[in-house]
Amino acid sequence: MLPHQFSDGFRYVALPCPPLPLCPLCPNVVAASTNPRPQVDSAEACSTINDALDRYTRYDADCPAPLREAIRYALLGPGKRLRPRLVLMASEACGGQIEAALPAACAVEMVHAYSLVHDDLPAMDDDDLRRGRPTCHKVFGEATAILVGDALLARAFEILASDVRPPDVAARCCAVLGRAAGACALVGGQSADLASAEAPEDQRGSLAALKGIHARKTGALIRASLELGGLVAAASAEQLSALTGYGELVGLAFQITDDLLDVAGSQEAVGKRVAKDSDRGKLTFPNLLGYEASRSEAAKLIDAACGMIEVFGPRARPLDALAKLIVSREK
Amino acid sequence: MLPHQFSDGFRYVALPCPPLPLCPLCPNVVAASTNPRPQVDSAEACSTINDALDRYTRYDADCPAPLREAIRYALLGPGKRLRPRLVLMASEACGGQIEAALPAACAVEMVHAYSLVHDDLPAMDDDDLRRGRPTCHKVFGEATAILVGDALLARAFEILASDVRPPDVAARCCAVLGRAAGACALVGGQSADLASAEAPEDQRGSLAALKGIHARKTGALIRASLELGGLVAAASAEQLSALTGYGELVGLAFQITDDLLDVAGSQEAVGKRVAKDSDRGKLTFPNLLGYEASRSEAAKLIDAACGMIEVFGPRARPLDALAKLIVSREK
Repeated sequence: MLPHQFSDGFRYVALPCPPLPLCPLCPNVVAASTNPRPQVDSAEACSTINDALDRYTRYDADCPAPLREAIRYALLGPGKRLRPRLVLMASEACGGQIEAALPAACAVEMVHAYSLVHDDLPAMDDDDLRRGRPTCHKVFGEATAILVGDALLARAFEILASDVRPPDVAARCCAVLGRAAGACALVGGQSADLASAEAPEDQRGSLAALKGIHARKTGALIRASLELGGLVAAASAEQLSALTGYGELVGLAFQITDDLLDVAGSQEAVGKRVAKDSDRGKLTFPNLLGYEASRSEAAKLIDAACGMIEVFGPRARPLDALAKLIVSREK
Repeated sequence: MLPHQFSDGFRYVALPCPPLPLCPLCPNVVAASTNPRPQVDSAEACSTINDALDRYTRYDADCPAPLREAIRYALLGPGKRLRPRLVLMASEACGGQIEAALPAACAVEMVHAYSLVHDDLPAMDDDDLRRGRPTCHKVFGEATAILVGDALLARAFEILASDVRPPDVAARCCAVLGRAAGACALVGGQSADLASAEAPEDQRGSLAALKGIHARKTGALIRASLELGGLVAAASAEQLSALTGYGELVGLAFQITDDLLDVAGSQEAVGKRVAKDSDRGKLTFPNLLGYEASRSEAAKLIDAACGMIEVFGPRARPLDALAKLIVSREK
């Protein structure tokens, strides 16, 4: 597998695009199933997404060079590209074309990247390592990292509004992403998560509270990825309902797995500091349920998620495979 | 003049909505001109804007209470409401209705409020005072202040996308605001401004460089306010061109006046720390041009701006009066 090459020779061009070895869209997986061949295999999907993210962040001279470099560092570095791939897969499940779904895919990845940059700041989670590299503020300073997040968030909406067609779908996509990134979702979840870490140990809340935090902090953007993919493919109300239902369940399973990796994963594989949540006394699923029960809960959620997308038939096989991959991942 | 009352009894409800005494839309100004009476006078416009901002930030229980309180502290406190009033005035110049322009007016004020919260952070301009009150991070902490900005930015797009009609205009508005808030405009200007303050004194750049910084940092959002007001009123290409031309000139004049107030204004009147830019060695218009030449430059820009909107006839009188007010303001 050749590493993905960015067009402008940026300094991390040579990193491979993960997690290809396990990707559910790889040709061997497809060949073994009765699934009609997806429009692109996984390597191609990652490369298509990375190329589009690269194009969308070239900027003209009005963007100061250090800011541009920092934006591209935060966005184009190695990542699972889970959310943009979910956008493309949801679109494909509804019979949509990749080209039409690509702006929405890039927009959600930008929102995800912005949230990581801001969450890593010293005033927030204070993390030094992300995706196996120093965090944005460690390389470019706090002021620039704050601005990187701001710029990525604004760019996400600019792209949706400009490049999704037709315009009424573009507006609907902006509304969905605006809500998912807002005070009652992504930002609210981070705020609640920070508050739970500061609370006395006996007041850190219940399983319901923990699920509520992650439904917002992680789940909302994953759910929105599915919804956007459906919207750009002109999905029916029933199809959107199936996709968002799948998104909610997969989002929660993803977070449980994140917590499990924080306990059991190695820093080298995960690419960020591990055991940090439990060290900080944050509420986590293994803390509340125990390790094995958490694994079992995640598996149940994935089964339910896969059940929801059966209505799409073979076109939803990539979504089905990705859901199963999410709970078996090592990073 | 009764102070504006917020609906939920928030703790700063009793502050008056400035700067009413000098407002170009006040009845006495209107009565003295041949202008057809505007749809609302200034007090009514401020009250309408504040009511809408209030409604747009009530949030449901998914938004943690401290975050909600901090968002409303940053957004609903006293302010000139210059940008939302420009949206309403631009719409009115093109024959639009206030109700149709109000979502766009609130969206630009949210972007402005977010940018102030982030710019005031210790890692950025490190300001303790804003609009006569402690800055958001001084009251609620840095983590919450970062999240407040993020939430306001996302909410601005959600509102534009959901409440501007028809949807193709909503999408166009999101694209305009996304660009104005992005890395080549608002965020890029702040980044360039921070870099200029850190540069050695003899490398702080020229008048062209300073204008370039402020065309992005201040000008882009003021220009976008005019463009959004035109768009929601179905302005023609010629009308949009006149409005954005006015916006660019007024934006620059506004920034020159800001620099002059930083030199000559009192902290009490301005509501934020004064002489901070010159103390920090930041590039400013008075530093480069001298005080009187800066005043004269601002006056020339305003004359040119007012010339650009003559095509609208009497409907643009509020824009004309506001432009003149901008250079004579004391805060």
